Amino acid sequence: MAFHYPNGTPYSNHEAITHKKQGKKAPTQFGKRGMDFEEEINQSNAYYLNHNTAVIHKKPTPVQIVKVDYPRRSAAVIKEAYFRQASTTDYNGVYNGYYLDFEAKETKNKTSFPFKNFHQHQIKHIQNCLVQKGICFILIWFSSLNRCFFFSGEDLVSYWLEQEKTGRKSLPLSLIEELGIEIKLGIAPRIPYLKAVEQYISTRSIQS
Amino acid sequence: MAFHYPNGTPYSNHEAITHKKQGKKAPTQFGKRGMDFEEEINQSNAYYLNHNTAVIHKKPTPVQIVKVDYPRRSAAVIKEAYFRQASTTDYNGVYNGYYLDFEAKETKNKTSFPFKNFHQHQIKHIQNCLVQKGICFILIWFSSLNRCFFFSGEDLVSYWLEQEKTGRKSLPLSLIEELGIEIKLGIAPRIPYLKAVEQYISTRSIQS
Repeated sequence: MAFHYPNGTPYSNHEAITHKKQGKKAPTQFGKRGMDFEEEINQSNAYYLNHNTAVIHKKPTPVQIVKVDYPRRSAAVIKEAYFRQASTTDYNGVYNGYYLDFEAKETKNKTSFPFKNFHQHQIKHIQNCLVQKGICFILIWFSSLNRCFFFSGEDLVSYWLEQEKTGRKSLPLSLIEELGIEIKLGIAPRIPYLKAVEQYISTRSIQS
Repeated sequence: MAFHYPNGTPYSNHEAITHKKQGKKAPTQFGKRGMDFEEEINQSNAYYLNHNTAVIHKKPTPVQIVKVDYPRRSAAVIKEAYFRQASTTDYNGVYNGYYLDFEAKETKNKTSFPFKNFHQHQIKHIQNCLVQKGICFILIWFSSLNRCFFFSGEDLVSYWLEQEKTGRKSLPLSLIEELGIEIKLGIAPRIPYLKAVEQYISTRSIQS
């Protein structure tokens, strides 16, 4: 399979997403503060895959393709396309018989995680997956604090619904510390989030 | 969320994929024979989602984005991008606590299903998911016969590995009839493949 990139260098899809956000609204300065959170998650997933621990992939950015050229002797070129809104979360896969589904989000806030990081359809997707007994969660990276948390889908949905009534605009860090599971960064994988998933599963089975 | 399409009409992503295939090799005349198999699967998934039966989505076509324009007052336009090879199967999701992972393929062959419909990396992905106790399978549509089959990931992998030794280039229909589960088309959903999944799960639990 030959893929033709200009200058032979692959373009970072993640950068394109960042550009997209910047094009749509005022540039939000998430990330790029020593650690690219999404890239670290992707590398952790690669580690888990290579070690037969789990099969988790990031979904491709959804794109609406309008015009494609087919030059002779080279790869098809998409000449016009538009970003579409995703209808699901970014990551899903399978771990030891469990369906995992999650979003990875970062903030430079120091005291809370803003709800504006989520769309209604993502919350709806998490609700749907919970009905099907999937393991749903978010991974939150506080870039200014260098702290990473697992926060369950059940808790996210519950506070999201409360927020719709109370108008509260964020999840306080104190609440995330209380209900979530802190993930200590490692070497390989850098973000060992499956430990938190295991802890969540074991706590849940004690409760039920 | 406003998405700007030329003439206001959304472009079918599926068509773009067809074009892509045609651009890469001689036009294969799969599909368009009374039923668009992929579209029928997508509609069946929408039915399952709306009825809280399962959450299964087709993954977006992976695209390597090279150049993006940001015109004022309108959506970002991707001006140069290339199709990438997918590293997974097309469909996955969760059904009653089970992780489901599958490919939907069609052929106009009448007596066998050619292995050339698969890539090595898809087989590898299915193997990885099976290790994690996922439910993996392919849905095969024989367009000339109007017959649809569920064929398990275990059987696919097993015959794929055999094929690498023997050079056999396809799965005979007789084998698919014997090992697979035929899916009778319905109205809603049009392709009730979860019935076959249920049958597969119950057979499997008797065996183990």
